[in-house]
Amino acid sequence: MTYCLAILVNEGIAFAADSRSSAGVDYVSAYRKLHQFETGPDRRVVLLSAGSLATTQEVVAVLRRDLTRPNVESLNSFGRLFEIAAYVGRVSQIVQRSHHTALHASGISGEATFILGGQIRGEAPRIFLVYPQGNFIEASADTPYLQIGETKYGKPVLDRIARPPISLQQAARLALLSLDATIKSNVSVGLPIDLAIYRKDSFLPIITGRLDELDPYYLEIREAWNNALLKAFLDLPDFSWPSVAYQPIGSSQ
Amino acid sequence: MTYCLAILVNEGIAFAADSRSSAGVDYVSAYRKLHQFETGPDRRVVLLSAGSLATTQEVVAVLRRDLTRPNVESLNSFGRLFEIAAYVGRVSQIVQRSHHTALHASGISGEATFILGGQIRGEAPRIFLVYPQGNFIEASADTPYLQIGETKYGKPVLDRIARPPISLQQAARLALLSLDATIKSNVSVGLPIDLAIYRKDSFLPIITGRLDELDPYYLEIREAWNNALLKAFLDLPDFSWPSVAYQPIGSSQ
Repeated sequence: MTYCLAILVNEGIAFAADSRSSAGVDYVSAYRKLHQFETGPDRRVVLLSAGSLATTQEVVAVLRRDLTRPNVESLNSFGRLFEIAAYVGRVSQIVQRSHHTALHASGISGEATFILGGQIRGEAPRIFLVYPQGNFIEASADTPYLQIGETKYGKPVLDRIARPPISLQQAARLALLSLDATIKSNVSVGLPIDLAIYRKDSFLPIITGRLDELDPYYLEIREAWNNALLKAFLDLPDFSWPSVAYQPIGSSQ
Repeated sequence: MTYCLAILVNEGIAFAADSRSSAGVDYVSAYRKLHQFETGPDRRVVLLSAGSLATTQEVVAVLRRDLTRPNVESLNSFGRLFEIAAYVGRVSQIVQRSHHTALHASGISGEATFILGGQIRGEAPRIFLVYPQGNFIEASADTPYLQIGETKYGKPVLDRIARPPISLQQAARLALLSLDATIKSNVSVGLPIDLAIYRKDSFLPIITGRLDELDPYYLEIREAWNNALLKAFLDLPDFSWPSVAYQPIGSSQ
């Protein structure tokens, strides 16, 4: 499996992705799922990928190739990010269809899901989730994050904390905690973690980094968070059974 | 869906279950998924149920009926709790098979999963997960909890905190937090929450209670935990990008 997420806050966008790829439990390896592109200076685009590794690699390769060709649709062709989301969906569908007959005969799914995030000059930063079918949804202020892959373990912490006013710094930290919760509970999601942040209206290079199990910051934040949760747990008020109308109902029902 | 869990600690067992039952999103209601039984004084047994409501209700009804019949297998027949787990598995299989043809024809699953917990005199307290196929696993000191239903959202907090030395009081609190995380992130799991605790070697009535959205303790612990998590998050060390070998790799890959 995979776990990738993007958090859209007022200051910009934080992206994070694990890098575990597995074909069964006996073939596990690391692949980058956070992709950047050499687009024009009026736009910054990041793509996170989940699903069939063959599909996602071919989609990314097509997107990169098309950027180098004149007179074809590419990430530079569109004035709005939702149009790029639709374009990524079309490329994904073309790639999936080209292998469908053979994959289907083997009972294998070639489906892939993407998160597209970034900014085109003239628009605010935006994040989209592109479904395997090529359609897409956009994050909103109410739910300012998108997840793909193994999404459930890391969702509670997002629901508690992800809000547009948190800083970009905090959004990156939150993305890391959401990934850490998933890595702790699910062996199919693994280190290293790729992180990226894009600051609104900067149109500057997107800052990315990779955290592995020896990274001092990752170790520090992981331990600090774990200790803080344990302390918070121990500090919670005691269960006062009588106050909550507890009936010792014995062996009856 | 459903979310039920049991945590086995040195002092005893804490059980918790949500009570939402849904046939699609347009038929949602509340059903008890935490069941007790009028067994003999040498044993205490609690059953948590997930899956087909028809199956789980019929299984519980059969278990209760058989307790009142002489000379048939019942929850009182066995000297070890794993034998009761196997018995619950057999009853579950019989109930499922009795409806299989009709359900299968309608494309409906009658599968059900159970957590069985309790103590028989002469044994330590134990908890088992009974699969729809009737086989079962037991929790261990390494993983001293079992979950059924919508298990993923509430797993990270268990992996961080659930250990045999925590008190029974704390185990009940932890079960509540695990359920709360699930309820926050998944609308198919809902209030009220049924809780039960069994103190090791007591063979006393199992203390149960029900918490709804107006319960003062639930509101207090929910808010305290949320605030503590937010504070812990804000207190985390800042992301120092340089320390983690961050390369501003610009628009290249």
